[in-house]
Amino acid sequence: MEEKKPRQSSLKTSKECLFCQIISGKAESYPVFDDKDTFAFLDTSPVLFGHILLIPKKHYRYIAEIPDKTVGLLFCNAKLLARALEDALDADGTLIAINDKVSQSKPHLHIHVIPRKFGDGFRGTFWPRYRYHSKEKIIKMQEKIKEALKSIK
Amino acid sequence: MEEKKPRQSSLKTSKECLFCQIISGKAESYPVFDDKDTFAFLDTSPVLFGHILLIPKKHYRYIAEIPDKTVGLLFCNAKLLARALEDALDADGTLIAINDKVSQSKPHLHIHVIPRKFGDGFRGTFWPRYRYHSKEKIIKMQEKIKEALKSIK
Repeated sequence: MEEKKPRQSSLKTSKECLFCQIISGKAESYPVFDDKDTFAFLDTSPVLFGHILLIPKKHYRYIAEIPDKTVGLLFCNAKLLARALEDALDADGTLIAINDKVSQSKPHLHIHVIPRKFGDGFRGTFWPRYRYHSKEKIIKMQEKIKEALKSIK
Repeated sequence: MEEKKPRQSSLKTSKECLFCQIISGKAESYPVFDDKDTFAFLDTSPVLFGHILLIPKKHYRYIAEIPDKTVGLLFCNAKLLARALEDALDADGTLIAINDKVSQSKPHLHIHVIPRKFGDGFRGTFWPRYRYHSKEKIIKMQEKIKEALKSIK
């Protein structure tokens, strides 16, 4: 059971954050990509070999904190890295994923870019499924989410 | 064991694609979001209740085919939907994920936005880890990916 944590984050200083230390060169890493706003390096405990972590250079804990422009840059680079993994490792595809807040192991937002092969046995995308059971239940869910979106915009 | 498939996709016509039929209203769905370039609706077999699929309106099979501008728009909307799920369902966070090619069940790129709670028991992000075992092995991997990136750019 994971600990219940507050929904609002406070930015940690770079002194406390391993990924900020990696960007500044204070902590060792195996970088594969580096541009003005983003940085990517190998996960040294990979889910599958070639697993990359792509991060914003500025310390953001959660996706909600990242300006749209940087969100765009990050995912265009995720697309680029996905292609590089296919080329470098003859991968068939990739898993591109963010664990935002829950299952997030480091307090600096990171995009996993993981090379996949057909039949690689990776169980991380084997997701058991639920059913809504009634049309009323799914419509109620739809309305809830639409209401929340209206309040945000 | 999944079937080995060719790496190059051919765009299917909208006639063949369920998600294109959903966008055009020919197939039923439970939409939650709709703008000029993107569309989001409830997965009716959710991994967790509230699971959303966010798609480009134009038919792209894989992320590599999507123009950077649309990639940016998609993920800014993924960020928006993640927040809406937290607000609507009192979720603690989200999983934002693309299964690109491997484990991709529908031939129209889709971003999963899945509401998470601490302690929800979801095993889909429980990823067993490997080790590179030697520094030489990780450096070799780093070089391979950097070489591939050089060839792309």
